[in-house]
Amino acid sequence: MPLKCGVMRICRFDDNRVGIVSGEGIRDVTAVLDRLPQVTYPLPRHDPFIAALRDLLPEMPAAARRASPIPVDQVRLLSPVANPGKIIAAPVNYKKHLEEALADKGIHHGNLVSEIHKAGMFLKAPSSLVGPGEGVKLVHLDRRNDHEVELAVVIGRKARNVSAAEAPGCIAGYCIGLDMTIRGPEERSLRKSPDSYCVLGPWLTTPDEIPDPGQLALSIKVNGETRQDAHTSDLILKVPELIAWGSSFYTLYPGDVLLTGTPQGVGPVRPGDMMLASIERIGSMRVEVT
Amino acid sequence: MPLKCGVMRICRFDDNRVGIVSGEGIRDVTAVLDRLPQVTYPLPRHDPFIAALRDLLPEMPAAARRASPIPVDQVRLLSPVANPGKIIAAPVNYKKHLEEALADKGIHHGNLVSEIHKAGMFLKAPSSLVGPGEGVKLVHLDRRNDHEVELAVVIGRKARNVSAAEAPGCIAGYCIGLDMTIRGPEERSLRKSPDSYCVLGPWLTTPDEIPDPGQLALSIKVNGETRQDAHTSDLILKVPELIAWGSSFYTLYPGDVLLTGTPQGVGPVRPGDMMLASIERIGSMRVEVT
Repeated sequence: MPLKCGVMRICRFDDNRVGIVSGEGIRDVTAVLDRLPQVTYPLPRHDPFIAALRDLLPEMPAAARRASPIPVDQVRLLSPVANPGKIIAAPVNYKKHLEEALADKGIHHGNLVSEIHKAGMFLKAPSSLVGPGEGVKLVHLDRRNDHEVELAVVIGRKARNVSAAEAPGCIAGYCIGLDMTIRGPEERSLRKSPDSYCVLGPWLTTPDEIPDPGQLALSIKVNGETRQDAHTSDLILKVPELIAWGSSFYTLYPGDVLLTGTPQGVGPVRPGDMMLASIERIGSMRVEVT
Repeated sequence: MPLKCGVMRICRFDDNRVGIVSGEGIRDVTAVLDRLPQVTYPLPRHDPFIAALRDLLPEMPAAARRASPIPVDQVRLLSPVANPGKIIAAPVNYKKHLEEALADKGIHHGNLVSEIHKAGMFLKAPSSLVGPGEGVKLVHLDRRNDHEVELAVVIGRKARNVSAAEAPGCIAGYCIGLDMTIRGPEERSLRKSPDSYCVLGPWLTTPDEIPDPGQLALSIKVNGETRQDAHTSDLILKVPELIAWGSSFYTLYPGDVLLTGTPQGVGPVRPGDMMLASIERIGSMRVEVT
């Protein structure tokens, strides 16, 4: 059963505040966190907030009405999911990105590049996760460091061996994801896992707003120049198929994040650059490179 | 500063009991968990037990003296680390395993196989983690599923850009790790991450017992037949170098697990098989394949 509570955009900001986002700004609903069950050792494999979201959503509108809106640009946006058990990512899931990766030695580094059916999915370290307000801090500056903008799916319920037809019922919401990448010969799960190389934001948009995740324009500008400008209708494996495929290997838990792959137009960033990533029906986020 | 409290073998068993292992059996010291700081959302990026281990170790001997020993074969051993933030693994870190991987299409599947300097390290999903008493449940039985026995290092303190000289001070202890693997063309981080494909056990052995992790015999038998029989002195990148290299990409947190690579002799297992993995100075663990 999908989360049904009207369209909602839920953000985390500043010192772990939780807010509801509307055109007027962010309304603080942090009080709902008091409802989370107490956590003891061993810790759960899910994100406690996302796991409880279905129960917390109905309380949020009333809490939001009691709060004054804060302008979005006055807060420091954190990742809307604090504790994903795993961050899964789809490589080469857009046909034109596969073509550019094959054509550019600066991307493929002599490795075989295969389309996603053969390449499989990879993992990014949970310790790489930041929100847009925290920025990306590049490492290994002797290498090319690229931006990759992606539609990110947040899993809302435990899923194991689900079918593509069942997959939409497992989704808690959508975000913009930046899958920052050091180019080089090593395994993706190393090159894409430095601290701050996974940016998730600006908020979690509930599925009510996004009836079809395969019909979204997405783009990224660097210092005002458009770098990637594409559409999720060009995804090779669609969101439900990715969830079904992943769940045939491992259990998906609430809060697990699935980055669905980046389209053509990946390119390097340098310290001082400002990225502006946008996805239709979700919003935009500015992320500084340092 | 390494953990200094005499040699200790610390296990988790049954329903999250904590025990000290000696020749007489396991003595229950679960009461020390009451000392763990309370956890609230967002959850920490470290394992709370391993992060507190330095403070808990001095209390364990007294607690153990008050308990009666339980025979090891009467408990269900869990992973000694419940909540690793990330499980990092080194591919092809033994020369002879690189040679066998290059020679056997059943292992390399047409992928380029490079030694570790070029291949980098990969990640296994934290959701793949089990203890020896939980067994390995194979999936994708149409594929070859292999055992890989490895020395596992548990990180004891936050580490970022540490040198190889500093690395030993970051180690909480050692375990036996089984890096179970589906063969195929996909990224390692997918094929090695199904639920139960990372076995950690039988307990955490503190560094006092292992002055040099590069001087340990390790082996695995399947149904009594020796499959891998090697020595960590043949590691290409030694434990301190692996920690230093990893920490140049991402922050290591207490409880993060580093699997140091498997030697030659990998081979398939089938449901019904019984694996017996051993590492000198740590011990042995029996793991059932189902």
